[in-house]
Amino acid sequence: MPGKLRTALQVDLDKPASEQRSLHVSRNTPDRTERGFKSRELIFEQNRWHPDIPSCATVGDGETVKIECLDWTGGQIGNNDSADDVKNVDLSRIHYLSGPFEITGAEPGDVLRVEIEDVQPLEEQPWGFTGVFHKDNGGGFLDELYPHAAKAIWDFEGISCTSRHIPGVKFAGLIHPGILGCAPSHEILAEWNRREGELVQANTLSRTVANLPLELNAHAGSAEEDIARRVAKEGARTIPGRPEHGGNCDIKNLSRGSKVYLPVHVPGAKFSVGDLHFSQGDGEISFCGAIEMAGTITLNFKVIKQGQAQMGMVNGRSPIYIPGPVQPQFGPSRMIFFEGFSVDEHGKQHYLDTTIAYRQSCLRVIEYLRRYGYTDYQIYLLLSAAPIEGHVAGIVDIPNSCTTIGLPMDIFSFDIRPETVPQRHIAESDACPVSP
Amino acid sequence: MPGKLRTALQVDLDKPASEQRSLHVSRNTPDRTERGFKSRELIFEQNRWHPDIPSCATVGDGETVKIECLDWTGGQIGNNDSADDVKNVDLSRIHYLSGPFEITGAEPGDVLRVEIEDVQPLEEQPWGFTGVFHKDNGGGFLDELYPHAAKAIWDFEGISCTSRHIPGVKFAGLIHPGILGCAPSHEILAEWNRREGELVQANTLSRTVANLPLELNAHAGSAEEDIARRVAKEGARTIPGRPEHGGNCDIKNLSRGSKVYLPVHVPGAKFSVGDLHFSQGDGEISFCGAIEMAGTITLNFKVIKQGQAQMGMVNGRSPIYIPGPVQPQFGPSRMIFFEGFSVDEHGKQHYLDTTIAYRQSCLRVIEYLRRYGYTDYQIYLLLSAAPIEGHVAGIVDIPNSCTTIGLPMDIFSFDIRPETVPQRHIAESDACPVSP
Amino acid sequence: MPGKLRTALQVDLDKPASEQRSLHVSRNTPDRTERGFKSRELIFEQNRWHPDIPSCATVGDGETVKIECLDWTGGQIGNNDSADDVKNVDLSRIHYLSGPFEITGAEPGDVLRVEIEDVQPLEEQPWGFTGVFHKDNGGGFLDELYPHAAKAIWDFEGISCTSRHIPGVKFAGLIHPGILGCAPSHEILAEWNRREGELVQANTLSRTVANLPLELNAHAGSAEEDIARRVAKEGARTIPGRPEHGGNCDIKNLSRGSKVYLPVHVPGAKFSVGDLHFSQGDGEISFCGAIEMAGTITLNFKVIKQGQAQMGMVNGRSPIYIPGPVQPQFGPSRMIFFEGFSVDEHGKQHYLDTTIAYRQSCLRVIEYLRRYGYTDYQIYLLLSAAPIEGHVAGIVDIPNSCTTIGLPMDIFSFDIRPETVPQRHIAESDACPVSP
Amino acid sequence: MPGKLRTALQVDLDKPASEQRSLHVSRNTPDRTERGFKSRELIFEQNRWHPDIPSCATVGDGETVKIECLDWTGGQIGNNDSADDVKNVDLSRIHYLSGPFEITGAEPGDVLRVEIEDVQPLEEQPWGFTGVFHKDNGGGFLDELYPHAAKAIWDFEGISCTSRHIPGVKFAGLIHPGILGCAPSHEILAEWNRREGELVQANTLSRTVANLPLELNAHAGSAEEDIARRVAKEGARTIPGRPEHGGNCDIKNLSRGSKVYLPVHVPGAKFSVGDLHFSQGDGEISFCGAIEMAGTITLNFKVIKQGQAQMGMVNGRSPIYIPGPVQPQFGPSRMIFFEGFSVDEHGKQHYLDTTIAYRQSCLRVIEYLRRYGYTDYQIYLLLSAAPIEGHVAGIVDIPNSCTTIGLPMDIFSFDIRPETVPQRHIAESDACPVSP
Repeated sequence: MPGKLRTALQVDLDKPASEQRSLHVSRNTPDRTERGFKSRELIFEQNRWHPDIPSCATVGDGETVKIECLDWTGGQIGNNDSADDVKNVDLSRIHYLSGPFEITGAEPGDVLRVEIEDVQPLEEQPWGFTGVFHKDNGGGFLDELYPHAAKAIWDFEGISCTSRHIPGVKFAGLIHPGILGCAPSHEILAEWNRREGELVQANTLSRTVANLPLELNAHAGSAEEDIARRVAKEGARTIPGRPEHGGNCDIKNLSRGSKVYLPVHVPGAKFSVGDLHFSQGDGEISFCGAIEMAGTITLNFKVIKQGQAQMGMVNGRSPIYIPGPVQPQFGPSRMIFFEGFSVDEHGKQHYLDTTIAYRQSCLRVIEYLRRYGYTDYQIYLLLSAAPIEGHVAGIVDIPNSCTTIGLPMDIFSFDIRPETVPQRHIAESDACPVSP
Repeated sequence: MPGKLRTALQVDLDKPASEQRSLHVSRNTPDRTERGFKSRELIFEQNRWHPDIPSCATVGDGETVKIECLDWTGGQIGNNDSADDVKNVDLSRIHYLSGPFEITGAEPGDVLRVEIEDVQPLEEQPWGFTGVFHKDNGGGFLDELYPHAAKAIWDFEGISCTSRHIPGVKFAGLIHPGILGCAPSHEILAEWNRREGELVQANTLSRTVANLPLELNAHAGSAEEDIARRVAKEGARTIPGRPEHGGNCDIKNLSRGSKVYLPVHVPGAKFSVGDLHFSQGDGEISFCGAIEMAGTITLNFKVIKQGQAQMGMVNGRSPIYIPGPVQPQFGPSRMIFFEGFSVDEHGKQHYLDTTIAYRQSCLRVIEYLRRYGYTDYQIYLLLSAAPIEGHVAGIVDIPNSCTTIGLPMDIFSFDIRPETVPQRHIAESDACPVSP
Repeated sequence: MPGKLRTALQVDLDKPASEQRSLHVSRNTPDRTERGFKSRELIFEQNRWHPDIPSCATVGDGETVKIECLDWTGGQIGNNDSADDVKNVDLSRIHYLSGPFEITGAEPGDVLRVEIEDVQPLEEQPWGFTGVFHKDNGGGFLDELYPHAAKAIWDFEGISCTSRHIPGVKFAGLIHPGILGCAPSHEILAEWNRREGELVQANTLSRTVANLPLELNAHAGSAEEDIARRVAKEGARTIPGRPEHGGNCDIKNLSRGSKVYLPVHVPGAKFSVGDLHFSQGDGEISFCGAIEMAGTITLNFKVIKQGQAQMGMVNGRSPIYIPGPVQPQFGPSRMIFFEGFSVDEHGKQHYLDTTIAYRQSCLRVIEYLRRYGYTDYQIYLLLSAAPIEGHVAGIVDIPNSCTTIGLPMDIFSFDIRPETVPQRHIAESDACPVSP
Repeated sequence: MPGKLRTALQVDLDKPASEQRSLHVSRNTPDRTERGFKSRELIFEQNRWHPDIPSCATVGDGETVKIECLDWTGGQIGNNDSADDVKNVDLSRIHYLSGPFEITGAEPGDVLRVEIEDVQPLEEQPWGFTGVFHKDNGGGFLDELYPHAAKAIWDFEGISCTSRHIPGVKFAGLIHPGILGCAPSHEILAEWNRREGELVQANTLSRTVANLPLELNAHAGSAEEDIARRVAKEGARTIPGRPEHGGNCDIKNLSRGSKVYLPVHVPGAKFSVGDLHFSQGDGEISFCGAIEMAGTITLNFKVIKQGQAQMGMVNGRSPIYIPGPVQPQFGPSRMIFFEGFSVDEHGKQHYLDTTIAYRQSCLRVIEYLRRYGYTDYQIYLLLSAAPIEGHVAGIVDIPNSCTTIGLPMDIFSFDIRPETVPQRHIAESDACPVSP
């Protein structure tokens, strides 16, 4: 007879992320329970992808466990009314993932099916944040136009959230993890470092195009010193999702009830998870763009033997997933869609550039919502955090890709239909904090 | 008391598109009815965007009319089992749009709200087609990998369609027009020609990146000869959608009941429509990728005075729309999503390239569905035509954009869940026609 | 290669329903096409259920055909602004069904799967009607409170409808047939007559509780005179749905794309269909309560051998169905639900009476919508015709059943949320026609 | 700046319901916090509706609080494999509601809007139960056919549940409170006692038709002895929902994010809540039919002054509600609907009896699902607990009401489509516990 679910990992909100390691309980500690570790004691985190980071716990094939996660900045952002902490965030100290977990019986070539049974904020921290990073420290999708740092704090009440920094909106969270995946093999890790290194080598843009391995603040969980040093030197950074394992894919619909099928590349899978989001819009455009939070995720694990061949995952890629049945439902006629094309804001025509088209869709929403009194930064934050739908509409009509962004009308407390003569609903004094 | 809707334009399926003009009834023809033209007689088409193409009929502000449209190739593709007609399609003789219609009272600065009350195939032609163009004649999103021409014919039975060339699937059409928009002003037309000309000038790719004005087979409706010559010389080609008016945006969700808000740039709006689709997937990836058909569209027109300022359409761009309430509904848990990232099929890393990410999502679906016996060309056609959902998931996690493609399981007659051990359902002899 | 669908039956809007028979074309008529009958010539109708009514045409197992249907009153109601025709309707001349169709190979014990590929109004009659019958001639669910006759005419524009008699509402039709079913066997017909006769015998209410066989205006299709007389004498009336075959079940969700599984009781199934509705609310409360129309239905037939045993249809009952994927979608949060309980409008407590509870839910909607200026008859008509959702919520909490009626907010042109301070939107002069 | 939500009431799972009172903290207790009561100390419950039961706590207009609730039997049912506890349940010791809460500023004539921000099972009790009551002790909707007691235990894993007693099903909970409402006024209470008394007086059935006030085990919260005695004598029982306040309406869609609008009849509203359900089908047919659980509900309260007049709540009735946006979504084509009519299982025809029609729909599902090996009791329990949809389809086609029950296919681990040849999936040894 099943009892209460075991919690496979817990975090301590009073400690910095890099110190959570000290709470690790080795497998031989006498006070481990018979299920493998003692509840509320095991704390373990990593901020690199590397096959040699030791597993922090073992989870059975078929088992369901609860795992606590820090927010992706490891607690650097406060519940206050200044964006200075966002502006000054230390991006070398992020993504302290919960894991890696060894899954009994998982082998390279298998697929690990992870069912996301639930995601919840921590009861003692019923709030989250969305940030626009400063152009000089992280940036974001619209940083050419909006270079300053900005912030919105969101308060959670049950399934819903509101923000004192973006009045007039309330919505149910499409709660999900930003990051989950299995560890790369040594071969895959080498491939990542090769191709991203080549991109950096070839870069002619005046901006960072990829983050290569970095020893500063690397965190390798419970690894002994020599392995930790190796992980720091070779370990892949956690910012990008990658085709071979998913990782930081930031898919907003990976919510409660979803099943994700992850390729396994090392014995035991070495699964990690983190970067929980209370909500996010397609694209997560402000980079720190979801409603970032600490929380608990409940996961069920199932190994599908030889699943990669069965599911046509050629060369071990890429994850597939099936959404859960409970995402917030807006009727299709309650969405306003904004078209965008591959012509940039300077009037330059690009060739089938879907990224530029999507930026144009974003700008169209900003231009539309200004009429209610929102500042551009407020809308930028809202587009990042609310469950907007971003679609590739047409991708072959040269030279223009066409994208659309769907904005749900029902998250606003006032009527935003195009026919409605606009009124100012948001006072200037209600603007969100911005740090130039 | 309203009676039967008037049909504002009809097509003759027995004539080539370029000859439809001969059926035009001038405004002074004695047998015009008092509503502006005689039912079943007025035929009028254009295949360029230009402010000087004369209107073919006037429609009142608030009026609903039916408009017949040719398929986008003007009848070049036959209901047969060879892809040779697709291979040899004459791409200078396409997009014979129905229009332009003058809308009473519309002025530059206004918005024309067009409600799509219905779209139907012609009763006498209950079928449509999807084509993969040959790499040397049109190409498509995956033409590097799939250079041959291919074709699927779809039969319509009520709201559903099936194809003898892609067995095992049946689905309800998300029926919509590929093209609708108002005429550009002279200024906007000049801007289009400038920026697309610059793109062509700067092109270093070994492929066509944009189609500039072309006199061959230009069709200017009922224009007198000097204007027709000018239109042929300056008129914008109809392939791309463009931010200032929409045009060939190929948005699959612009279906029954949708309202689209179009900026007006010339007096009377000069609205045109065409390129009807029985169904399409997000991206329309094979270029001739929707289920292309001739049909009838029922539209209601409403002028919103000074609507561009009201809706924040800065510099006269871009259209917005609200979908109708009746699109086919698959439960969220009946979709399989395939992730794609900005790493191309040769292992090269690109920087936040969403177009490449989307191509990878497409390839993942092909690899997945092969297991049932489908050929790659069949899946390529299916991805183009079926109501797949293409999302921008993450667009800021440098260097990888992440896109997803959602494939509805319920369009298949067999179980395609990842857990199901795959069986061959499609025989080799069931492959679609391909013309190398 | 499939061509245009054949039309299996057509109606003539210029003839009264009882004369449609004269257009019947026998199977040996020389101008029959090779598909079994000549397009646009075969007309055949019945208004009783009886196993001996001859089939009017044969449809193959697996075939799709189009069938035209009269409106359920056979054309008695006009597109005008008086409710007198509703008041004086002749209820012995209704439900001229299209059929019976013999389905090749169907035998008692089988199940006939009927897929509703499409339903459309006739192009030449783009309107329908909703009526409240007079208490003394037909009545309805609320006739104790609303005894007069009333009427609303609805105009169709594509998938949507509006009524000059109920301003302020517009919605997409959930278009469907009110009646479809296979003929009863002699045994089943005898059982119907027995049990309904016993109900009439035992009746102590001061109202009609069931309609027994009636010779007046009985119509037996192409039956020879002796059979026609027998049908008139024994044939079951078409008003009620019945468990053994479905019949007039008036299920609003049997719309485009639905599959209904009908028990077969006689060789060839003898399937009939009619009483098309452009839209209906759950309950069809005003009796003539849907948006009644003439139209065309496209059906695909498939015989499932021994299907009754396979599907657990014990004693040959009852139909099951699977809805289609395209019904109008309102987000769940765009519905207002009204609770009703088994306490009647006189304050009397009834024991688990769900019918009374449902009436109370109806009355609560009327009380709510009055605040906008609608008359009670307008709301009664609207509740009948619009796609309201009627649920059994709780049916065991003695002595009260609880029902709910869900009213979609988005069919109104003004904001009807409970928080909104109500304003009069409908003028007294906009009331619908009522005939006392 | 909002902090953690206060918990307005907590329960102690180690104490019987009737003793929870001892934990009550009076308003003058020194260790009350400044918010009105001390967290984790205030316990207060009632099991009658009466205006004189003292409020247990005050909640501000606009405030959100968490409230813990016992399961509706107050802990009488165990997580084991025998139905004996269900058979022997003491029905005088049920429905210990959490409350009454005084809402600041609420007055008779107002409406109390309650937004259900969240509902969760207690973390320490991640399971619930569904019971069929014995015909001689409670009974249920099908007790004539299924007189024995039966039970299923459900295990919760995040948002989903499964039962070892009903293998082969798994579904997401549509979690909700069975009971919520404001206290009746003295006048309304008298009216309840009058009309239910008259029903009992007039009863000729051989079964209990209503439960009148009962002194045995009456529980009046913190009331002083004289008031407690009065409450015991006059207080309305909690089993039925009632039109004037809602109460035990058992509406499955009152889930997360719903807003319910409750008439206020006494100063301060005196709101109570309880009987939490992890899931329920429309009708809750087995009486103890939901997945019953103890848990926590998060509610936001808002007083709408003079709301009853504004919302047309004539004579102070009845509640209305708007569902939340996150209910589990099954595509419409993933539901099988079963028709039922007013002909009972003995072949007797009833007149527009929707209760009988609904029972027939239930029986049709039982007959259908038997083919997989389920026992009738298992299906009866499943119909009660799973999110089945119960609709009133037609209610005017004399003499037959038509109801439908929609069964979601996707809750089963095997394919239940009608076309699929059935196989035995459930072994006899997997039957649920039954106690004759």
